[in-house]
Amino acid sequence: MLAQISMFPLGKSSGLSEDVAGVIDRIDKSGLPYQLTAMGTLIEGEWDEVMELIGRCRKLLLEKHERIYLVLKVDEQPGVTGKLRGKINSVEKRLGHQVSK
Amino acid sequence: MLAQISMFPLGKSSGLSEDVAGVIDRIDKSGLPYQLTAMGTLIEGEWDEVMELIGRCRKLLLEKHERIYLVLKVDEQPGVTGKLRGKINSVEKRLGHQVSK
Amino acid sequence: MLAQISMFPLGKSSGLSEDVAGVIDRIDKSGLPYQLTAMGTLIEGEWDEVMELIGRCRKLLLEKHERIYLVLKVDEQPGVTGKLRGKINSVEKRLGHQVSK
Amino acid sequence: MLAQISMFPLGKSSGLSEDVAGVIDRIDKSGLPYQLTAMGTLIEGEWDEVMELIGRCRKLLLEKHERIYLVLKVDEQPGVTGKLRGKINSVEKRLGHQVSK
Repeated sequence: MLAQISMFPLGKSSGLSEDVAGVIDRIDKSGLPYQLTAMGTLIEGEWDEVMELIGRCRKLLLEKHERIYLVLKVDEQPGVTGKLRGKINSVEKRLGHQVSK
Repeated sequence: MLAQISMFPLGKSSGLSEDVAGVIDRIDKSGLPYQLTAMGTLIEGEWDEVMELIGRCRKLLLEKHERIYLVLKVDEQPGVTGKLRGKINSVEKRLGHQVSK
Repeated sequence: MLAQISMFPLGKSSGLSEDVAGVIDRIDKSGLPYQLTAMGTLIEGEWDEVMELIGRCRKLLLEKHERIYLVLKVDEQPGVTGKLRGKINSVEKRLGHQVSK
Repeated sequence: MLAQISMFPLGKSSGLSEDVAGVIDRIDKSGLPYQLTAMGTLIEGEWDEVMELIGRCRKLLLEKHERIYLVLKVDEQPGVTGKLRGKINSVEKRLGHQVSK
């Protein structure tokens, strides 16, 4: 499945990159394929491993902040992998040219 | 924490209420406080119990559908409970009148 | 169409009800059918009128805050109205009992 | 402001890339900075121009589908631009290494 997660503490309007960096470091060490974007991080993996990882990331934020907010989107299709890149390739094939970098 | 979850199969543009009813029945039996709305269901509980419940609900949909989509929002503030009703009460107190039914 | 909107300033972890109350007051005065929940507000209406309303609400927050965050979900099905209550009724009919209050 | 938008027809579990390609083509022609990802498209611009563009994209889907679903996240901070790349740079600076490609 493919997940896109955004999480941040409420109570800060700047300096959020420090919190995000801690979370990304944790995701990076999980070994799961992921992509950092300016509005959230995409992670590919099985439900249990992705949710367990997200649970640990949010715990990290709660160690330093009293309240956090999180938005998660999931596209799950058992048996289909490689969607992190595959979905973009399908769209670019239709367009006839590359739009991602 | 307070969660709001929307989940549905991709591949159906009508008759979604049958799928939603199955999910709501599962949530109802969990014993956790919840509220059904036309755009998702609010659930209040601890991270582990809410996520485990959502995991089972999504499994239910995957038994009948090959691909599902899910959007989850979480507002987590350890030590604060009763937010399902409390957040609305705070807003109505500010407004000086009741807007919820 | 049916929209569900959550918006709040980044930089505050408490006292959010004051901001939400200002937004709800604006929505209430629009005359559009809406429902306040603990995780966002549902609004029913045509795309243009709902988006124009949301635009004004977010402007209200930006008058007092330097940075805001907003999550919007839309279920649009032209020609179908009364979904704010209709979707819940369909689910409760399937369940055979009422779960909303 | 920075927006992340996902939109798709309900009623299709495959072949979504054709719909997405039509939407991306429209976004590409708008001239606004954007980034296609496997879980949505990021667009940077002013509220009015981004919302007007999203309105047109969703109209495109409604020409061919009877019901659509849309999730939009917005991070708005007036006066701050270049966030599409800037937010990632801040995180990578904290991490001390590049994680995006």
